[in-house]
Amino acid sequence: MFTLDSRLQADTVFIGRLPLCQVLLMNDSRYPWLILVPARVDAREYYHLSVADQTQMMRESAWVAEKLADQYSAKSMNVAALGNVVPQLHVHHVVRKATDPAWPGPVWGHSPAVPYGDAELEQRVHELKGLFSSHFVEDIDGSEDIENNIYW
Amino acid sequence: MFTLDSRLQADTVFIGRLPLCQVLLMNDSRYPWLILVPARVDAREYYHLSVADQTQMMRESAWVAEKLADQYSAKSMNVAALGNVVPQLHVHHVVRKATDPAWPGPVWGHSPAVPYGDAELEQRVHELKGLFSSHFVEDIDGSEDIENNIYW
Repeated sequence: MFTLDSRLQADTVFIGRLPLCQVLLMNDSRYPWLILVPARVDAREYYHLSVADQTQMMRESAWVAEKLADQYSAKSMNVAALGNVVPQLHVHHVVRKATDPAWPGPVWGHSPAVPYGDAELEQRVHELKGLFSSHFVEDIDGSEDIENNIYW
Repeated sequence: MFTLDSRLQADTVFIGRLPLCQVLLMNDSRYPWLILVPARVDAREYYHLSVADQTQMMRESAWVAEKLADQYSAKSMNVAALGNVVPQLHVHHVVRKATDPAWPGPVWGHSPAVPYGDAELEQRVHELKGLFSSHFVEDIDGSEDIENNIYW
C-alpha cells in the first residue's frame, strides 16, 4: 500500500488528490511551491512508473505547472525530481520570480523555509483547492486499482 | 526554425538527436550530466509542448535517465527543468552519487564546472553515443514536421 514519506508529510500540507498524484503544498511562504507524489509503491524515479503512469505524471505535472504559473505570475517554473534526501518519487513545482530570495539559483538548500502564518496558510490552501479541484478525485489507498484509462 | 540557445551551445557537447530532443553533454567532468532540449520553437515550459510532445518528452527523459543511472551507478537521478537563466526549455539529467561534490544539495549554482580533458571528453562522448544510438535519428531542422506517431 502506498504511504507518503514521513519527511514529505512533515514539510507539506495536503491539498488534494489527482488521478495519479497527491498534491502537497510545501510549507514555505516565500514561494508558491507544490509537490506532486504519484501514489505508487516503491517508485523512486520516473522510469519506475509504468509507461501509462509516466504519461499521466506528465499530464498532471504540466497542468499543475501551467495553473500555478498563471495564478502567481511566474517568471519561470522549476519542475524537478531530485530525490537526494527523500528517495520516494516526488516532483517539485516551484513558482519562481526575479524578486524571490534564491533567484536565479535553485531553491533547494538555499535557506531554511519560512512557514506560513495560520491565516496566510488557510488562504493559500483555499486558493489552491479552488485552482485544482476540477480534477481532484477521492484520495484512496490501493490506488493501483485505478484504471489508467479513466484519467482525463 | 528551432535553434539551440547560445549558452546551451557554449556549455555542452552534442551527442545525438532523439525523435523529439537534442541530447547534449554538459561539459562538467564531475557529473555524468545530459541535457535534453526538445527541438520545438518557443517552448519555455513543458506545458508549451503539445500533449503528444509532452508524452514523448517523458518517454525520452525516462529512457535517458534509466540508461544513465545504470551506466554510471547513480544513487539518484536529478531530472529538472529550471529555466531561470536560459529560458529555452531544457531538461537536466544528472547522475548523483553520495561522493559527488554537491551531494546532497543541487548541482546548479554549487561551484564552477570542471571541463573534461580532451581524451576524457572523447571517451565520454563515445560511451554516450553507444548508449543512446539505438534511438538516434537524423538531426534535421524543420522537425515540427515529424509525425508524432512514428516515435518509439
